[in-house]
Amino acid sequence: MFAGLSAFPLTPINEQGVHEDEFIRLVTRLARARVDSIGVLGSTGSYMYLSREERARVTRLAVEGADGVPVVAGIGALSTREVIRLAEDAQKAGASGVLLAPVSYQALTEEEVFGHYKAACKTLDVPLCVYDNPGTTHFTFSDKLHARIAELPRVASIKIPPVPLDREAAQTRIARLRALIPDHVTLGISGDPAAATALGAGCDGWYSVLGGLFPEAALAITRTAQAGNAEEAQCLSDIFEPLWALYREYGSLRVIATVAELQGQVSAPCLPLKTLTGEARTRIERFVEACG
Amino acid sequence: MFAGLSAFPLTPINEQGVHEDEFIRLVTRLARARVDSIGVLGSTGSYMYLSREERARVTRLAVEGADGVPVVAGIGALSTREVIRLAEDAQKAGASGVLLAPVSYQALTEEEVFGHYKAACKTLDVPLCVYDNPGTTHFTFSDKLHARIAELPRVASIKIPPVPLDREAAQTRIARLRALIPDHVTLGISGDPAAATALGAGCDGWYSVLGGLFPEAALAITRTAQAGNAEEAQCLSDIFEPLWALYREYGSLRVIATVAELQGQVSAPCLPLKTLTGEARTRIERFVEACG
Repeated sequence: MFAGLSAFPLTPINEQGVHEDEFIRLVTRLARARVDSIGVLGSTGSYMYLSREERARVTRLAVEGADGVPVVAGIGALSTREVIRLAEDAQKAGASGVLLAPVSYQALTEEEVFGHYKAACKTLDVPLCVYDNPGTTHFTFSDKLHARIAELPRVASIKIPPVPLDREAAQTRIARLRALIPDHVTLGISGDPAAATALGAGCDGWYSVLGGLFPEAALAITRTAQAGNAEEAQCLSDIFEPLWALYREYGSLRVIATVAELQGQVSAPCLPLKTLTGEARTRIERFVEACG
Repeated sequence: MFAGLSAFPLTPINEQGVHEDEFIRLVTRLARARVDSIGVLGSTGSYMYLSREERARVTRLAVEGADGVPVVAGIGALSTREVIRLAEDAQKAGASGVLLAPVSYQALTEEEVFGHYKAACKTLDVPLCVYDNPGTTHFTFSDKLHARIAELPRVASIKIPPVPLDREAAQTRIARLRALIPDHVTLGISGDPAAATALGAGCDGWYSVLGGLFPEAALAITRTAQAGNAEEAQCLSDIFEPLWALYREYGSLRVIATVAELQGQVSAPCLPLKTLTGEARTRIERFVEACG
């Protein structure tokens, strides 16, 4: 489950709540494309902007629509109490695995983060992916902490932030982390622009924003890299360079939400976040048209 | 309400929920000391770690225990939908004002933050204090954005981050911001170590962590500064230098929670946050003993 392509769909939400039919359509497309797993309620799925009830409902809808593809659900929250409740909810809703980021309001210490994961693992019967996303959590894992957490029961994967785009540097980074963690714990890349490089440099999987909206294209990159054709995978990834440039300026969520909105797949954003306007939107329109 | 000493009590919480009797005792002490307002559910009150129901309950308990002292309640949340619900809850619970920080998961743009405040102000019948706390929200206000938000109806104060400890630099900073905002909007300092300086340099009030646990001492500093005795206020503040040094190392919440725990006022912390151990705890013990 924690290898290959994990596709992260948006959760379409507005002031009234989740657009369930839009969400189901997104999930159904991923199931039809036969991605390796569906990662709901990641950063792309706006998990931190939803209530506990909405998150349980979204997980249930995903499991129903996934047609047997494993569903991994984000259970991140600021308090350990809430993470434990969300872990129980995710399991009840049928998630095959969970994703946990050390979300912070007060800056966290390493001991606090370790305690947070330990408490979550104690509650779980399904495997957990450690979600390392310093850009949103404002917590930076040391490799030593990764190694400690990876020894906890239930921990099965680490979703790592972008590796360097230089292949050798990427290999070095991945090899260093892999040497510190148990063999059964996989490493998956996040940050779409680095995915082809990372898959070619030893990552087991790709936790993919692109894959949530363009599953066939993301699968093509993944399968090509898995077959050992690193250069071809890179070429397939380079097609999306106009998107990667926008990611770097505006963040992947706003960009992919704007693409989905322009394609008519998602009707409204969740405030305070807004989809892109002006010149950025025009660039995205041009890209969507070019994609046909 | 948004001038003088606003005392911010801890919200004692553990895995089972809020310790209501401990919280009521903290509030009662503030009411007896006749602070100018009680700021519940600020960062010191762990608002981001509590459920909506717990926050409504804490606000109600504070209003009941405040004996007529105005209660200001934090309504910050990641989504605008949730802020609107919390604003309604706070008003129903009897809060005299609210405090709103632009809490973020995805980094926010200025337009998004402005929209967030605009939506909150629309819901409110009570005044609002803009809570500028880049250390926890990871959003930095420009002065231009402060000026725009300060023009919104209901906005009555800005809780600003620490000013420079040099008095002239503090005066310059406060004067520059004051020139950009309407006359009826007050400026209050946060960051206890800078409070005496800021009150002497033109701030109208102090949003105080210290005041939540040591209301008499914080009132003495405030009243002395308000009477124009800046140097004496500074001397009274300097007594707490051992605490300020710990704040700089561990953050004010962990330090004041450890003090409260050592004094027997608060029985357990809220995970993942932990109170201090080892050498830091020993230093705090020494300070608590010296305070008698």
